[in-house]
Amino acid sequence: MTAVPRAVCLLSGGLDSTTCLALARRDGFACYALSFDYGQRHRIELEAAASVAKALGAAGHQVVHIDLRTFGQSALTSDIPVPKGRPDAEMAAEIPVTYVPARNTIFLSFALAWAEVLGAADIFTGVNALDYSGYPDCRPEYIEAFERMANLATKAGVTGQTRLRIRTPLIELTKADIVRLAVELRLDLSLTHSCYDPDPAGRPCGQCDSCLLRKKGFAEAGVADPLAR
Amino acid sequence: MTAVPRAVCLLSGGLDSTTCLALARRDGFACYALSFDYGQRHRIELEAAASVAKALGAAGHQVVHIDLRTFGQSALTSDIPVPKGRPDAEMAAEIPVTYVPARNTIFLSFALAWAEVLGAADIFTGVNALDYSGYPDCRPEYIEAFERMANLATKAGVTGQTRLRIRTPLIELTKADIVRLAVELRLDLSLTHSCYDPDPAGRPCGQCDSCLLRKKGFAEAGVADPLAR
Repeated sequence: MTAVPRAVCLLSGGLDSTTCLALARRDGFACYALSFDYGQRHRIELEAAASVAKALGAAGHQVVHIDLRTFGQSALTSDIPVPKGRPDAEMAAEIPVTYVPARNTIFLSFALAWAEVLGAADIFTGVNALDYSGYPDCRPEYIEAFERMANLATKAGVTGQTRLRIRTPLIELTKADIVRLAVELRLDLSLTHSCYDPDPAGRPCGQCDSCLLRKKGFAEAGVADPLAR
Repeated sequence: MTAVPRAVCLLSGGLDSTTCLALARRDGFACYALSFDYGQRHRIELEAAASVAKALGAAGHQVVHIDLRTFGQSALTSDIPVPKGRPDAEMAAEIPVTYVPARNTIFLSFALAWAEVLGAADIFTGVNALDYSGYPDCRPEYIEAFERMANLATKAGVTGQTRLRIRTPLIELTKADIVRLAVELRLDLSLTHSCYDPDPAGRPCGQCDSCLLRKKGFAEAGVADPLAR
């Protein structure tokens, strides 16, 4: 009997990370979902992550508490208003105020630590370089550089027992492609959560970058979003 | 008037990170010291870091709380006994049980976040590749790979405004060299703390890898350690 390979899967509970986790499971991995409580303004994201991890049969789910507010200066972790109604061209051209410094680097570093403990050679992240809202740490050249560093950082990499891989199955897809893929995988997208600025009941605002990208994706895929009001 | 350049300095409160912070200050940086409360078995390390930051006139000092025990499996964060009395050859040949998975990667990732917020282009770490107790993430090739990744990860790196540098002034020095340097810089080494397994009063055990390396360094430099019993 061959042991089932393990993978650490970054999971925010959004459309992208949910689809990414489902792909890892489809590819035969025992998935260990990893979420972060990093002082984001809404906890509904963590509830969505927990529901998704359960629904997709994750072998484990950890929430790591870190305080990125210490370093401040993002609309996702402070009182800076989340921008609403930004046109596509503006999203593509600028790094927005919702950018959290070094966030993906910190998230992937914790994933690396867990992967090493689990003996997992694969880390999945749903980063996306096309409809990516202008974050520098979502680009393929960044991911490749992280992977290279990771293989020098760890016991597993040094002894050559394991070659760590940062897997980004969504990196070249449009949001519409991701929606189509999620439908193909029969995912329950009502469990997911994408909004940067939900109302007190947890409903999406419909106007932040993340809501606009999601809306465009569903529209282009010709699929109804179960979260749409 | 030229603005004083800022640097983030990783500070455990040990001999190496203390000397490294002093070098950054000597080189004209306004130093922002960064320490971690990561579930290590003793808090005296954090008290040492606070004393050192104050004594060396750091412009700021932050302690980030993270729970590396979630991922477990190190003698520094669990109940595994800290090895005592290991000979040099063994230290050099094996990655020890005191290794915390991906620790330096996580620490440097937080430093990167803070550097970006501060507009600092320099991150100092006291890692040491010679008397380094066998950790993979203390080697120059690892540091270079992290620096490369960091410059792709951040807004500053992408816009080309700032080239981030991971500075490791101690990386090629022996412990004896570091002790000599600390003496030259007139550092108060009674404030530092190196032991992995101090007694309840905070006194060093004298037998763990870290104590043995420190002892050897002071002996070879012909200097008395103010912490020696």
